[in-house]
Amino acid sequence: MKIGVVGLGTVGFGVVEILTQQKERLEKQIGEEVTVKYGCSLDEVTLPEGIIYTQDFNDVINDDEVDVVVELIGGTTIAKKIIIEALKKGKNVVTANKALIAHDGQEIFETAAKHHAKFYYEASVGGGIPVVVPAKEDLIANEIEKIEGILNGTTNFILTLMETDNLDFDEALTIADGLGYVEADASLDLDGIDAAHKIQILAMNAFEIFFDFDKIKATGIRSVTKKDMDYAKKLGYRIKLIAQAKKIENGYGIDVSPTLISLKDMVANVNQAYNVVEITCNYLENVLFYGKGAGRYVTASAVVSDIMKTHQQDMWKHDYQYVENIYPITKSKYYVRCDHSLDIDYETYFSQDHDHIYITNQIELNDLLEQLQGETYNLFKVRG
Amino acid sequence: MKIGVVGLGTVGFGVVEILTQQKERLEKQIGEEVTVKYGCSLDEVTLPEGIIYTQDFNDVINDDEVDVVVELIGGTTIAKKIIIEALKKGKNVVTANKALIAHDGQEIFETAAKHHAKFYYEASVGGGIPVVVPAKEDLIANEIEKIEGILNGTTNFILTLMETDNLDFDEALTIADGLGYVEADASLDLDGIDAAHKIQILAMNAFEIFFDFDKIKATGIRSVTKKDMDYAKKLGYRIKLIAQAKKIENGYGIDVSPTLISLKDMVANVNQAYNVVEITCNYLENVLFYGKGAGRYVTASAVVSDIMKTHQQDMWKHDYQYVENIYPITKSKYYVRCDHSLDIDYETYFSQDHDHIYITNQIELNDLLEQLQGETYNLFKVRG
Repeated sequence: MKIGVVGLGTVGFGVVEILTQQKERLEKQIGEEVTVKYGCSLDEVTLPEGIIYTQDFNDVINDDEVDVVVELIGGTTIAKKIIIEALKKGKNVVTANKALIAHDGQEIFETAAKHHAKFYYEASVGGGIPVVVPAKEDLIANEIEKIEGILNGTTNFILTLMETDNLDFDEALTIADGLGYVEADASLDLDGIDAAHKIQILAMNAFEIFFDFDKIKATGIRSVTKKDMDYAKKLGYRIKLIAQAKKIENGYGIDVSPTLISLKDMVANVNQAYNVVEITCNYLENVLFYGKGAGRYVTASAVVSDIMKTHQQDMWKHDYQYVENIYPITKSKYYVRCDHSLDIDYETYFSQDHDHIYITNQIELNDLLEQLQGETYNLFKVRG
Repeated sequence: MKIGVVGLGTVGFGVVEILTQQKERLEKQIGEEVTVKYGCSLDEVTLPEGIIYTQDFNDVINDDEVDVVVELIGGTTIAKKIIIEALKKGKNVVTANKALIAHDGQEIFETAAKHHAKFYYEASVGGGIPVVVPAKEDLIANEIEKIEGILNGTTNFILTLMETDNLDFDEALTIADGLGYVEADASLDLDGIDAAHKIQILAMNAFEIFFDFDKIKATGIRSVTKKDMDYAKKLGYRIKLIAQAKKIENGYGIDVSPTLISLKDMVANVNQAYNVVEITCNYLENVLFYGKGAGRYVTASAVVSDIMKTHQQDMWKHDYQYVENIYPITKSKYYVRCDHSLDIDYETYFSQDHDHIYITNQIELNDLLEQLQGETYNLFKVRG
C-alpha cells in the first residue's frame, strides 16, 4: 500500500513517525508493503528519508500509485475538497476530522459508496480509544439502545481541576489554557460543540441514521460552579459533561449537557483528559471503552489502525514463535501482614492489634520471603 | 453463509436465538444470507423452525454447505476433535472455549492456517466485551507492553460480596454458590485457572508468542481474608484477582494473583461479576475495556460477531436513512439549586445557607422550568 499523508501537524507527523518506526512489524501483520509516499503540508517539514514532500495536495490525489489518502489538516473547506476528490478517484480515505463528518458526513459517505472507496474515521471520536470500529463490527449482534460518553478531554480536565484544586470555572480555565489544553476557538470545547460532533458520529453508526448537526442541543460547562460541584459531591455525585444519544418513543434523543453521575458509577471516575464511551445494547448490556482522548501518538495510533484496515487481510494467521521464557511476575510492591516488624524498604507501615502491615517498595518476592521465614503472614501484590 | 452450531447449552442456544431474531438486520449488514442450518446437541432441544436438529456432529462437519462451525460444547476432548476436523475441511470455526485454546491453541491455529480456514474466539475472554479482536486489529499500530485484567466474574463477585456484606471467604463462597455463580469444578474459578486460560490467550496475541499453559503461575482468592481486605481499605486499596502479562527483561512475566489496587484506579472500581481488561502500549498508552464477563446473551453476542467476521464484507457502506426526529433528552432526573422550595417530586432535598437543593425524580424539563419561573437557579441533569 502506498500512503499520502495530507496535513503534517501534531497528528499527521505522528502518523508518519509510527508508519516509519513500525513499518516492518505492520508489513508482517498485513502481509504487504506499507510505504508513505507523500507528506503534504504548507509549512515545510523534514520528513524521514524516501518520503516525497509536497505543498500541493493534487500531487497526492493525482498519483495513481497512492491508494490511501490520510486527511489530517482539519477544517471543513479544503479538507472536504481533498476527501471528496480522493474518493472520486477510488482512493481509500482515512481522517480524524470530526467536524467535517458531523456536518458533511452523508455526502462523503455517499461519495465513498458510489466510487467503491473506503472511508474510515476511528480517530474522530475518543482519540486513540477503539470505539467507532468496535461499536459497529464487534457489537454487530446487538441493537444499540444508548450511548453515553465523556468525549471532550479539555472540559473534563477543567472539571477535574475545579474539584481537586477547589477552583471556580474561570480560574480553572485560565490554568488549563496555560497548560495548552484550550484550543484557539475555545467555544468548540467549552460549549460542548466538539462533544456534539463526536456523539453525532457515534449515533449515526449506532442507529444507522443521518441527521443534521444543528439538531443536537449542546450545553457546555460554563454554568458549572464550584458551589454546585460541592453540593453534588455531598449528595454522592460528580458533575461531568455527558454526550448522550438514545432511542426515544418518537425518534432519537441526542444532546450534550453537564450531568451529575453517581460516584459509584465507573463514568464518574473518568478524570483529567481521559475519555469514556459507554454503550448499552440488547444482548451485551453495557460495555465501556476508556482511554486517553487526545495526544499526538494516541490519535495517530487510531489513524494507523484505520490505514491498515483499508487493506485488511486476515491478520489472524497466528504465525507466532514458541517461547520458553515465561515467568511469574515476582518483582512488585507487596502488601504484607505479619507477626513481627521487618527489615525492608516500605512505602507504608502501621501496626494494629498484633499485626504489622506493610506496603513495601518494589522488591523481589524471594528477598521478601527470606524476611518472613518462620513467621505467620499473608501476602499480596500491590499494583503500580 | 450456512452455520452449524454444535453445543446447545446456555451460550449455544443464545447464539441460535440471536441469529434467528436478528437475521434480517445481520443480512443487511454483511450483504448476504445468514442461515443456521444445524443445531447439534446430545440433549434434545426444540429449535426454531427450519433448523435441522442432530445429535451427531459429523452431520454438520460433513455437510459441504456449512461454512461456519460454532463449537460451544466446551471441554478439551470432543470439542478439539470437532474443531480440528472442521478446520481440516476448510470450514471456518468460532468458539468460546478458553481452556482448549490455552492448552491446544498452537495446534489449532496451525491447522487453521494450513487449511486456509478462519478460527475466531472473541467470546473466550471477557464474555461479550470486545477485547480479543480490538487488541489485535484496532491496536495494530502499537507494541503492546502490558495487559492487566479482572478476567473471572465469579471470584470478583465473591470479593465484592466479602467487602459489601462484611463476610469472610467461606461465607461469601456459600452465598455465591447458592446464587449459581460457582461452577461444578469450583477450582477453575477459585484457584485462578480460568483467569490464567484467558490471560494466556491475550498474551499470545499481544506478544505474538506460543507457550505452555503450565508456565503460568495462578494463585486464586482462597487466601484473601476479610481482615486483609479491611487493612487494604484503610490504606486506600481494594483486593482484586488480577491476571497480568508483560514484557520483562529476560522474557515475559505472566501470572494470576490477588493484588491490591488503589481505590483511585478505574480497575479497583470494577465490582460484582464485571470484567475489565487494561492494555498498556507504546503509542496509545493505556486503554480499558469493561463490561459483563458472562451470561447467555452477553457471551452469545461475541460469538455472533465472530460468525459475521468470518464473512466480513465491508460493513461500512453507511446506507443509512436520513431522519428529522432528533430531540434533546429533556425527560431526566435533575439537580436543581434555587432560592425557594419547589412543589415537585424529588429523590433528595436539603437546604444550606440560602440554597434549596434537589435531586428530582424523572421529570420533563418544561414542567420543572415552570416551577422555576422568576427564580434564580442552576440546573443540571442527573444520570440514571
